[in-house]
Amino acid sequence: MPAIDVAQAFYDVLRARGVTRIFGNPGSNELTMLKHLPDDIEYVLALQEGAAIAMADGFAQASGTLGVVNLHSSSGTGNAMGNLTNSAAAHVPLLVIAGQQSRRYVPLNAMLTNVDATRLADPLVKWATEPLRPDDVPLAVSQAALLAQSAPTGPVFVSVPLDDWARPMDAAEAAPLSTRRVAGAPVVAEGVIDEIAAALDAARSPVLVLGPGVDTEAGWAATRALSERAGLPVWVAPSPSRAPFPTRHPHFRGILPTGLGAVAETLAAHDLVLTLGAAVFRYHQFVDGSPLAAGARLIGVTSDPGEAARAAVGELSVGEPVDAAARLSVRVAPRASAPGNAPALEAAPPEADGAQSAAAILDTVDRAKPDDAVVVLEWTSADALWARLTFDRAQSYYFPANGGLGWGLPAAVGVQLADPTRPVIAVIGDGAMQYTPSALWTAARYGIPVTFVICQNREYGALQRFSRFLEVPDGGYLDLPGLDPVAIAEGYGIDSRRVDGLDDLEEVVRQAASATGPRLVVVTQQSQR
Amino acid sequence: MPAIDVAQAFYDVLRARGVTRIFGNPGSNELTMLKHLPDDIEYVLALQEGAAIAMADGFAQASGTLGVVNLHSSSGTGNAMGNLTNSAAAHVPLLVIAGQQSRRYVPLNAMLTNVDATRLADPLVKWATEPLRPDDVPLAVSQAALLAQSAPTGPVFVSVPLDDWARPMDAAEAAPLSTRRVAGAPVVAEGVIDEIAAALDAARSPVLVLGPGVDTEAGWAATRALSERAGLPVWVAPSPSRAPFPTRHPHFRGILPTGLGAVAETLAAHDLVLTLGAAVFRYHQFVDGSPLAAGARLIGVTSDPGEAARAAVGELSVGEPVDAAARLSVRVAPRASAPGNAPALEAAPPEADGAQSAAAILDTVDRAKPDDAVVVLEWTSADALWARLTFDRAQSYYFPANGGLGWGLPAAVGVQLADPTRPVIAVIGDGAMQYTPSALWTAARYGIPVTFVICQNREYGALQRFSRFLEVPDGGYLDLPGLDPVAIAEGYGIDSRRVDGLDDLEEVVRQAASATGPRLVVVTQQSQR
Repeated sequence: MPAIDVAQAFYDVLRARGVTRIFGNPGSNELTMLKHLPDDIEYVLALQEGAAIAMADGFAQASGTLGVVNLHSSSGTGNAMGNLTNSAAAHVPLLVIAGQQSRRYVPLNAMLTNVDATRLADPLVKWATEPLRPDDVPLAVSQAALLAQSAPTGPVFVSVPLDDWARPMDAAEAAPLSTRRVAGAPVVAEGVIDEIAAALDAARSPVLVLGPGVDTEAGWAATRALSERAGLPVWVAPSPSRAPFPTRHPHFRGILPTGLGAVAETLAAHDLVLTLGAAVFRYHQFVDGSPLAAGARLIGVTSDPGEAARAAVGELSVGEPVDAAARLSVRVAPRASAPGNAPALEAAPPEADGAQSAAAILDTVDRAKPDDAVVVLEWTSADALWARLTFDRAQSYYFPANGGLGWGLPAAVGVQLADPTRPVIAVIGDGAMQYTPSALWTAARYGIPVTFVICQNREYGALQRFSRFLEVPDGGYLDLPGLDPVAIAEGYGIDSRRVDGLDDLEEVVRQAASATGPRLVVVTQQSQR
Repeated sequence: MPAIDVAQAFYDVLRARGVTRIFGNPGSNELTMLKHLPDDIEYVLALQEGAAIAMADGFAQASGTLGVVNLHSSSGTGNAMGNLTNSAAAHVPLLVIAGQQSRRYVPLNAMLTNVDATRLADPLVKWATEPLRPDDVPLAVSQAALLAQSAPTGPVFVSVPLDDWARPMDAAEAAPLSTRRVAGAPVVAEGVIDEIAAALDAARSPVLVLGPGVDTEAGWAATRALSERAGLPVWVAPSPSRAPFPTRHPHFRGILPTGLGAVAETLAAHDLVLTLGAAVFRYHQFVDGSPLAAGARLIGVTSDPGEAARAAVGELSVGEPVDAAARLSVRVAPRASAPGNAPALEAAPPEADGAQSAAAILDTVDRAKPDDAVVVLEWTSADALWARLTFDRAQSYYFPANGGLGWGLPAAVGVQLADPTRPVIAVIGDGAMQYTPSALWTAARYGIPVTFVICQNREYGALQRFSRFLEVPDGGYLDLPGLDPVAIAEGYGIDSRRVDGLDDLEEVVRQAASATGPRLVVVTQQSQR
């Protein structure tokens, strides 16, 4: 019976899933996996695990493939768990491989043992496993990867003892894994589509609310066709992590607010709300009230049964929302566009004392960004303002889906690696930058040409706003004096400087199309106090 | 029935537990707790949660009081979970308070909800809870704190919805909490002490192995008295996170190796091994073999029943090990010192191409460090070499107990805050520095006079060593070119420079006794390839 190393069978499984890169930060438990790394799979080094996982996440989201991240035992997994909350919330198909101590040392709780390894990541993943035999490692990885990519897609976790990789296993056990396929995106039944189409046709004033689940090329085409045929105005669901609709389309109305009663009020004119690929809803700022105006009806399609069950209101169907949009777009009765316009943008406040408003910074980025640019934003000053940016194709905007900071900087690195033809602009707050600053080193080391725009208001600006709302006295713990993002970026090997006004910023962003390596600029932003 | 705010009752509970500082990184869920922050409790801001928790950990370990850290929901808790593995392994009494969304928003999974909050931290804490009523928050915090400080001490987790803090509750429910006391350090029975004393007296060649559980002033006095009276040579248990015995005492023999067979070989001359406050053992590098030489007997005392049950060999008793040492020290028969000497230190390798050996750097720090200095070390080049440092009093040395990197830099900040009379020298690898570099900002912001010594070998040196052992080919992913720790530290507002040789380093470390603010120096270290 021919033998194969566990490591070789493992890398064969990754190849079968189309994996070309592993992001990671290794420790002594992981060296034995790296020992067998083949030439056709690149190991991209991050200096901290929160950065490594967010790079894999951004890569997976932007490429539509399985993301793979290699973490060091319990401490490395722990460091990554903040950003894992973002991956879980964004339904990112992400395979987390954590190195475990040697099998004999685990029950002794030796240094670097991941004690009860499957429990640690469990609350944030679809499945967590630690194979009972070395021979089962490739099988476990194959099962985990297929599950990660089946609806609802999401992260999975496999713990592998360090002495497993070099073990021989029966090649016949490994062989079938390379041919495994799962068609894991079931669609809603024909009868459901009929019912939704009938409801749209019968409604007096239907409205479409889109979520991150339809932000793909096919999703944009389908939801646009549906909106145009049925004359539907389009809102983006609250707390969006993606931009699912062209922001300059005449049917675009903006981003819904994040309070229960506020959503109902915004949609009060409509008797029917159709949600596609969205939670119902991802609230944030507490405003009491009903989720929907009296008499209104909400129907929706999501691929996540949990999201469907949790909806605050409405009749949800579980299935692929892009497919539903495409089928609806040829089924609904044509109707003239509802009255209304894309939201008018208020003029941005002017420069004051050399500091810029959030709106003016966004407008400048928008004017300057190359066609096809992607914006990764982790700047809570702008989470309600990003519709000022012009997006006219899919997968142009990314925000941390769980609101967990430290995701944007490294995610931008992964997004850029996924598609070198689309320049990535990362717009990051000076506070947000400090959670995973070492991601800049990876951009420098591998020459990944992200343009980083750091907006420095020297405070936790979003919290200053909330503090006014909540009447929190000024305790000084929301101020960030004395940070020099230029020096920090230079310390990580990045070409870096402070811009001198918006024209200067515009010029830097404009050069993103021809950048051959990462650059970072710092913009002085007005305080939000 | 008089009413009191939940927040006020909560802060009363912290006061009753002697809490003077809360470390944290707040988000919108936590502002309502901060709104009621009293003047006599300081909120120390960290820019990332892994840094916040390690500061609280260092503060708790060095002060002997309850550490308190405030984290932001699931993402903030997640970011902290890497360092929480260190706190758990070190048995640090640490109260983790995580902000939860408002009660009505939690079941809707609103943005910043900590979904199933008690499950997230559960594998790493003694108890995780989320009170069912706002009125129960002070009670839950009181119970958690008392549990954290009872043997085996360790972290606890309480999730608090953001709308709880301002709620009124019955003052009569809160009143008893301030008078709660738990004497939570039970001791081993008199009969056990008799048995151990008899075993020591009867042994041909007994040896003492000490762990972090006896690194207190009382522990040093008791183990020293025991060792001197019974003539016992003293080893430090493998993978030590603390220095439990004077490194220049004639009975000191060094640090045990981390492999199963290697420990047995090192202790082969002894027929009786007595462990106090140690796991048996905290192995790391896999070396097969038996835990103890044939015919040898191991007996030990630990306050952790889990540690006792997991021991690879031996007869363990559960109880306070310092108390056991003190009682044994007056019970055992006097005996002449066993033959042998404190380990001779090999001469440090000389400077080469302007780069220093790890041993020479340690020797320089040792020569220069002020009396009473504390060393926080997260430099894996030196984890087997630190006995070159002279320690002649308790609580002089700290290392991440789970081997999780990113702990040392912020822990040093907490250790320094705990006792301003003892200068803290943080010796940190250039790789280790990159997990939580923003801890430097907190040191600068609050003027905390830690002396940071960054040892730069431009590689993951410990992994290079392991790679040779494991025959891992050079993949480039263990190299850290292009990092400038001086620039990074300046970016965080720290006075920083590269030293010009060991004399220069010596001068900087010598000034630690009079430092009024943090300083950072970078030493060029020789490669370990």
